[in-house]
Amino acid sequence: MKILVTGATGFIGQRLVNSSLRESYQIAVIVRENSDTSVLGKGIKVFHYNENIDKLIKFCTYEKFDGVIHLATHFTTNHTTEDIPKLIVSNVKFGTEIIEAAIQTKIKWMINVGTFWQNFCSDGYNPANLYAATKEAFQTIAKYYTETSDLIFTTIKLNDTYGPNDTRKKLINLWNKIAKTGESVDFPEGNQIMDISYIDDVISAFEILIKHLYSVDCHNFKNKIFTVSAKERVTLKELASIYEKATKSKLHINWGKRPYRKREVMVPWDKSIPIPGWNPKYSLEMGFKELMKQQDNV
Amino acid sequence: MKILVTGATGFIGQRLVNSSLRESYQIAVIVRENSDTSVLGKGIKVFHYNENIDKLIKFCTYEKFDGVIHLATHFTTNHTTEDIPKLIVSNVKFGTEIIEAAIQTKIKWMINVGTFWQNFCSDGYNPANLYAATKEAFQTIAKYYTETSDLIFTTIKLNDTYGPNDTRKKLINLWNKIAKTGESVDFPEGNQIMDISYIDDVISAFEILIKHLYSVDCHNFKNKIFTVSAKERVTLKELASIYEKATKSKLHINWGKRPYRKREVMVPWDKSIPIPGWNPKYSLEMGFKELMKQQDNV
Repeated sequence: MKILVTGATGFIGQRLVNSSLRESYQIAVIVRENSDTSVLGKGIKVFHYNENIDKLIKFCTYEKFDGVIHLATHFTTNHTTEDIPKLIVSNVKFGTEIIEAAIQTKIKWMINVGTFWQNFCSDGYNPANLYAATKEAFQTIAKYYTETSDLIFTTIKLNDTYGPNDTRKKLINLWNKIAKTGESVDFPEGNQIMDISYIDDVISAFEILIKHLYSVDCHNFKNKIFTVSAKERVTLKELASIYEKATKSKLHINWGKRPYRKREVMVPWDKSIPIPGWNPKYSLEMGFKELMKQQDNV
Repeated sequence: MKILVTGATGFIGQRLVNSSLRESYQIAVIVRENSDTSVLGKGIKVFHYNENIDKLIKFCTYEKFDGVIHLATHFTTNHTTEDIPKLIVSNVKFGTEIIEAAIQTKIKWMINVGTFWQNFCSDGYNPANLYAATKEAFQTIAKYYTETSDLIFTTIKLNDTYGPNDTRKKLINLWNKIAKTGESVDFPEGNQIMDISYIDDVISAFEILIKHLYSVDCHNFKNKIFTVSAKERVTLKELASIYEKATKSKLHINWGKRPYRKREVMVPWDKSIPIPGWNPKYSLEMGFKELMKQQDNV
């Protein structure tokens, strides 16, 4: 049982390829030529991609993967002109090359990763930002492949995530920093509802979905969109209180000193369809405590 | 009144920038660095694009365009792996760069060009091929920009087109060739319905739409999709007879000697919404006669 993973050097990818997945499946990863693969641990086959799709197809033909988990992405909340080629190349072109290789080498299933931001204030498609638009554009292209093949293409839409070894410029990392330094930061009013998942819940969602894709019911998962949503939803302000209590720290946040950003998501998409059999285990308090414990161990 | 045109060295683009449009509007074109611009005629400003989006924005800021007509495309019926980067770069990335420049420089309207193939056997989106999927992917990305700005973004979906100076590998060019050489070619059964427009009808569709976009009713054209559909629809076999009669030639076609291609469009999308005030003028017979006349003049 062989799985190909893209984006394996990222926050979720690292955790996924070093999870219990390794015990059940042979894992290979596809990384950029300049990627730091030291984070990947032993026993994982690494394919360096230089945008030569024919070489990628040759590799996939030789390896005979059952499935591919497509985590690679270029992420940005508000894009600059410099982000445009990166967003298109990482989020549209690379995905198309992966799915083309999957079709040509008869890979059975592909897990794609989307974002709640594809559904800004809307049940249907309405992108909160250009990043979300490129995620949807890839699904638009994937439709050509799913209409013309038996590939089981399933999307997991993620909202915010956190956990140890997260190097992304994200909320909880900022809080970890200011809790230590004591510096104060300006924030908007803080009434937006947060849906933020601890990494272990995210990983278990992938693990359970993969089990489904290896089951006799795998065809029920074709062209489906699932979500990873947190156990609790609280406002950003409440989230800060929970963080302070769980981590026994003090956040110096000047609430209301910054305006909300353009197209700030005040209420995250709530038409989520969880993966059958998956439930988040971590309350916010548990997640923050676990985060502290893991960080102290490092 | 200043218009920017992409894809101006292509079949439709050439004809458009050399049409009566030149009398009413100042036209600038954006071409690849290695494009042959000798076909463009005098008085047209040429901007060579080297994928530096900031330079493009500077150019658009200086020129203060009212609108942009986005004709540039990489076309392919059945893609190879080599086409994938070209399809994404030309049909998704370049369009995104153009629309970003349009937004940043307050361009009022943009005409995008789509294809009937985006609606294979379906009122909704279902791509006949990867080319059509990349066209739809660009519209998916454009939604981010239209949701966050006042840009009037309108799409014209084209079906098949023909006319003088067409260098594309297309049906009528093949017939022109075999009518001269007398060689015989294998074709499928020929029962698919054809919707093929003479170039002058296509150009007049653009001209009329541009007038709407300069009118007080321009806002009615935001996020609309229009179609250019032929005066008559006939089967491919009937089309060959009309061609033979109009051009007084003989086509040696072995009908039924080739299978239909994968996802051959047997009945083109018929939910077309024509541009208000536009009607095709050329019957198939008139179009073929005009084509012969124009070619004899060259």
